[in-house]
Amino acid sequence: MASRTPSAAPTSPRTGRSGGRTAGTPAEPSPRAGESAPAEPSTPAAKGAPAGKGGERPRRRLSVDERREQLIAVALELFSRRPPEEVSIDDIAAAAGASRPLVYHYFPGKQALYEESLRRAGRELAGRFEEPADGPLSERLYRVMGRYLDFVQSHGPGFAALLRGGSVAASAGTSAVIDEVRRAAHDQILSHLAVPSPSPGLRLTVRAWIANAEITSLEWLGERSVPLEELQLHLVQEFVAALTLTAAREPALAAELAGFFAAERPDGPTGLLVRELAALFADPGIADAVAALVVGPAN
Amino acid sequence: MASRTPSAAPTSPRTGRSGGRTAGTPAEPSPRAGESAPAEPSTPAAKGAPAGKGGERPRRRLSVDERREQLIAVALELFSRRPPEEVSIDDIAAAAGASRPLVYHYFPGKQALYEESLRRAGRELAGRFEEPADGPLSERLYRVMGRYLDFVQSHGPGFAALLRGGSVAASAGTSAVIDEVRRAAHDQILSHLAVPSPSPGLRLTVRAWIANAEITSLEWLGERSVPLEELQLHLVQEFVAALTLTAAREPALAAELAGFFAAERPDGPTGLLVRELAALFADPGIADAVAALVVGPAN
Repeated sequence: MASRTPSAAPTSPRTGRSGGRTAGTPAEPSPRAGESAPAEPSTPAAKGAPAGKGGERPRRRLSVDERREQLIAVALELFSRRPPEEVSIDDIAAAAGASRPLVYHYFPGKQALYEESLRRAGRELAGRFEEPADGPLSERLYRVMGRYLDFVQSHGPGFAALLRGGSVAASAGTSAVIDEVRRAAHDQILSHLAVPSPSPGLRLTVRAWIANAEITSLEWLGERSVPLEELQLHLVQEFVAALTLTAAREPALAAELAGFFAAERPDGPTGLLVRELAALFADPGIADAVAALVVGPAN
Repeated sequence: MASRTPSAAPTSPRTGRSGGRTAGTPAEPSPRAGESAPAEPSTPAAKGAPAGKGGERPRRRLSVDERREQLIAVALELFSRRPPEEVSIDDIAAAAGASRPLVYHYFPGKQALYEESLRRAGRELAGRFEEPADGPLSERLYRVMGRYLDFVQSHGPGFAALLRGGSVAASAGTSAVIDEVRRAAHDQILSHLAVPSPSPGLRLTVRAWIANAEITSLEWLGERSVPLEELQLHLVQEFVAALTLTAAREPALAAELAGFFAAERPDGPTGLLVRELAALFADPGIADAVAALVVGPAN
């Protein structure tokens, strides 16, 4: 996501919910957001001008759409670094090189700006779950988790504040964004599983694993006790284990699981997991105990 | 929780956080909460009288502490059945047979009453995680999950509204209650594992599994697609699987895991799981694929 143009959504159009923004505003370079830039005076022109042909003039004034996009980008940056309680409209105005009244001209208040920036972040995050259906499943998921964890790392405090809930800025709007990201993750994973009609049990497995990924990344943000790559591998392996458990309960899934294991590579996340578990179950104490359980109850 | 006396906390004293309530108020029978009872007039005596010797009088007026407890109990009942947005102070007053001003005399507003009733519910829920350290681990956890799921079932809409977040009533206070219940669950599970110094990885496994239990029960409340007993069994088996995966990564845990498996019984949750997995891995397609992965990459 290194380069963006004002006329293109930051992520794939598939995830877009553009909120009524008019496309086609002429592209003009956005000024750099400077922490110490003086507040831009809220002139009648900036206040009242409709969107549209601003790009034809030689002046470097941002069009209405561009200014709006810039304010959202600046807000997202601030809300990523600090919990919403600790970001004020003044902070956003200062970082955008705009005046407070100008910010209020575009957004009724901090909550609206918070929710809009959150919707953008949600859209970007949802876009990171998209992955071509190529190669072993666990390797696809591993790549997805790499992008997800990069997002978590770069939006840490905001991500944590959002998911912890109980924030004064939590609302039906923020909750809807979280739900939408979860749904995108769920749908993407199911599409990679390519199971014709996923059972309620399989859907629940996917949702529970998404909750696992959330709680795990939240914990990681707090303590950073393991390298991010380890988390990435463990989460994928936990998914493989959860899928296997679900197949053990649902015979209809066993055939899918066979196909899934057959496509895995020995040096991929599943191969590593299988060998780790084989080593664990080779432990004589564990092997004996498990063997006794396999035999079943004496009748 | 059929009978309560004002001087005893509703759940085990170990989990109690009595919030500065003075114990020792004389017990007096509470009037039945009737949906259609007329509002009790807020007399100066009821309003201004300090707690204490009210029990000496023959009148059946509730003492200050009793009234407070009654209001909390009534509020908890209503907040269990409906999301907080759909419960008004008038509903609580009517259900308690009290007047609106009387409710406001005890609580500054709905939010305070909501949070207090939530604290009680949280304490009760936390109490349900307490389980004697007897018998196989998975059977202990199975009993705990039975009590947990009963709670979820009987407090459904309130539980869902609370955990879904984004409620207008979500606050730092409600968030603290959720955190406290999660911590109680986490600590109880770790105490049953009896691992001398639990690693960050093991703690994370426990927390992620608690999130799994939450999301699973939330989903269940929405769809009720499987019997509750199945959920109870699956959650316990998922814990066993998560613990096994953690031990596969952390050699220090392998000895603990051997002891844990050795204590399990063939007809318990772990025994059932082991046989389900053994049957799954006996599937020729899965067996061949897994065997190839066990061999490892060719060098």
